[in-house]
Amino acid sequence: MRAVVIDDGDLRVDERPDPVPGPTEVVVSVASAGLNGADILQRRGLYPAPAGAPVDIPGLEFSGVVAALGADVRGVTVGDRVMGIVAGGAQATMVAVDARHLLHVPNHVSLLDAGGFAEAATTAYDALVTQAHLSAGDRVLITGAAGGVGTAAVQLAHALGAQVIASVRSLAQHDAVAALGADEVLEPDAAAVHGPFDVVLELVGAPSLEAALGSLNIGARIAVVGVGAGAKAQVNLLVLMGARAQISGATLRARGAEEKAAIAAAMERDVVPLLAAGALTVPVAATFGLDDVRSAYDRFTAGGKLGKVLLVCDEELSRR
Amino acid sequence: MRAVVIDDGDLRVDERPDPVPGPTEVVVSVASAGLNGADILQRRGLYPAPAGAPVDIPGLEFSGVVAALGADVRGVTVGDRVMGIVAGGAQATMVAVDARHLLHVPNHVSLLDAGGFAEAATTAYDALVTQAHLSAGDRVLITGAAGGVGTAAVQLAHALGAQVIASVRSLAQHDAVAALGADEVLEPDAAAVHGPFDVVLELVGAPSLEAALGSLNIGARIAVVGVGAGAKAQVNLLVLMGARAQISGATLRARGAEEKAAIAAAMERDVVPLLAAGALTVPVAATFGLDDVRSAYDRFTAGGKLGKVLLVCDEELSRR
Repeated sequence: MRAVVIDDGDLRVDERPDPVPGPTEVVVSVASAGLNGADILQRRGLYPAPAGAPVDIPGLEFSGVVAALGADVRGVTVGDRVMGIVAGGAQATMVAVDARHLLHVPNHVSLLDAGGFAEAATTAYDALVTQAHLSAGDRVLITGAAGGVGTAAVQLAHALGAQVIASVRSLAQHDAVAALGADEVLEPDAAAVHGPFDVVLELVGAPSLEAALGSLNIGARIAVVGVGAGAKAQVNLLVLMGARAQISGATLRARGAEEKAAIAAAMERDVVPLLAAGALTVPVAATFGLDDVRSAYDRFTAGGKLGKVLLVCDEELSRR
Repeated sequence: MRAVVIDDGDLRVDERPDPVPGPTEVVVSVASAGLNGADILQRRGLYPAPAGAPVDIPGLEFSGVVAALGADVRGVTVGDRVMGIVAGGAQATMVAVDARHLLHVPNHVSLLDAGGFAEAATTAYDALVTQAHLSAGDRVLITGAAGGVGTAAVQLAHALGAQVIASVRSLAQHDAVAALGADEVLEPDAAAVHGPFDVVLELVGAPSLEAALGSLNIGARIAVVGVGAGAKAQVNLLVLMGARAQISGATLRARGAEEKAAIAAAMERDVVPLLAAGALTVPVAATFGLDDVRSAYDRFTAGGKLGKVLLVCDEELSRR
C-alpha cells in the first residue's frame, strides 16, 4: 500500500506492506481521510501514536470499502461502505481497523465526504452529549465553530434542539456557520459574553475558556477538546462553585478498544441517522491528493477554513 | 429569642422577635449550631446571606426540637428531634426552616453532636456522591481532611467502600483522622503525589488542587467545595484531556427550596442511616456557649482542630 509517512517532522508518501487483518479486524481500502489537529501535533513530535497504532503513519479518520475480513468478524461484508476512527494510520490506501469501530456510510453520502465525518462528529458527540449532557433548550457556546469539530458540533447541537451560539474568528465564515444551524455567530470577544451558557464546547483553548467562565448559567458544563491557543488556563474556583459548574476534558485517541466500540455503537444509533437524514453534513474546505499531502497539512494549519481538509487516498473510491 | 448578630464585622448576642412559621415551615428550638467557613466569610462581609435568610444572623446548621408547625406541614410533630441546614440564622435559640429540609436525629445521637452534622455531611455527600460519583474501590484524596467537612467526608468515603487518602497539615491530627477511616493520612505535599486518584475532594483551595492535578487516574473527578487557601487555580487543560478528568464546584447555600428538599431526602435515605449505625460520627473539636460566640469564631479560625466547633444555644436541649 501507499502511506503518508512522518519522517523527522517532514511528510512523504512511501510504500508499506499491505496490512493483514487480525481475527477481529477488517482491512479497508481507504477512499479519503480527514486531517485533524492531532496529525499536526504528531508531525511535530508532540503527540506520539499510542501503542498498537503505526508509529509514523498519521491519520485518525477514514472512509472506504471493506477489502478483507478477519476470521472472527461477523456483521460486516467485503464491499461494505464504511467509515471510522483509528488511533493512527488512516492516511494511506489501506488501513486495518477493529470491526466494532466501523460505522456504515448512509447511501446518499459520498465516500469522499464520509472520510471527514467520524473523528469530528464523534468528538463533537462525546463532548456535547457524553461529557456535557447537552439537552434540548440548552444555550450552548461553541468556540472555533468553523473547524472540523466545530461545524459538526454546530449541526449536532442544533439537531438536538439546543440554542447555538457560535464563536468564529473569521468574518468570512459567519454566514456559512449560521447556515449550518447556529442561532447566532459572533466574533470570539463578543460571543464569550453573550451568555449565560448552559454548555460550552471549548475548541480554541485557555484564553477562550477563561473568557467564557464569566458567562455561565447555574449547572453549566464546559467540555474542552481543543487547546490550540494555549493549554494553561487560570480558573477562578469560586466561579465554578457559585455556578455549580464543571470543566471536563477528553480525547478519543487514547481510549481502549471496548470503550471505542461502545462509542461507535452510540454513534451508529444516535448520530449516523442524522447524517442519513441530512441534518448533519460534512463541510469540506479543501481536498488534496495523497501525493499532495504537504499542501494539505499547510492548508489545515493556515486557518480561515470552513470544515474539513480531506486527503483523497483513492480518487475512484471517493466518487462512490 | 436570643441570636448571634453580625454588626459591622463584630459579633454580639441580641434579643430578636421569635420566628413565626410560614405555612410550610416549622420553628425549631435550637440545641446546638455548628460553625462553618461561610460564617467567617459572612462576618467579614464577603458572603452576604441569600434572599430570604436573616441578613445579620449567621449559622447554616442546627439541631433541636420542633416547637411550632406551619398550617400545611405534615409528617413532623412538635417535640421531634431534628437537625438541618438553613441559608442563615441558625446561631440563635430559635430558627424557622422549611419542613422538607429537616433530617431526623437518630436515637442514640445527642442533639449536641447533631448540631454539627447536617452542613458538613451534606456538603461531603453532595461533593463525593452527586458531583464526583464516588464508587466502592475508588481511590479518593480528601484535602483538609481534619476539618468539619473533611472528617465527614473521610467517614462517608470509607463507609462507601472507597480507599481514602487524607491530606492533613497538622501532624497532631493524623492518628485521629486515620481512626475515622482514612487508609493513609499524609501531609499535603506527600498526599498530592500519592495517587493516582479517581476522586479528589478539594477543601483547601487552588495550590492544593494544582498539586493534585498531576496524580489523576483516567476518568478522575475533582470536586471543589473549599478555597480558603486561594481561589485562582492554574489548570493545564491538556492534563484534563489526557485523564478525561473533570473539575466541578458547588455550594449548598444558594440552591432553591425544591433542590434542598431533594438533597435532604437523599441524605435521610443514604446518609442518616450511616449516622444511626455509628459508621458516621460528629467529631467535636470544641463547644462554646452562645454568649461565648467570639471565642467560638476565634477557635474556628485558629485551625489545627479535629472536626466541628459547636455553639451551644440551649444547654439543657443539647444534653438530650
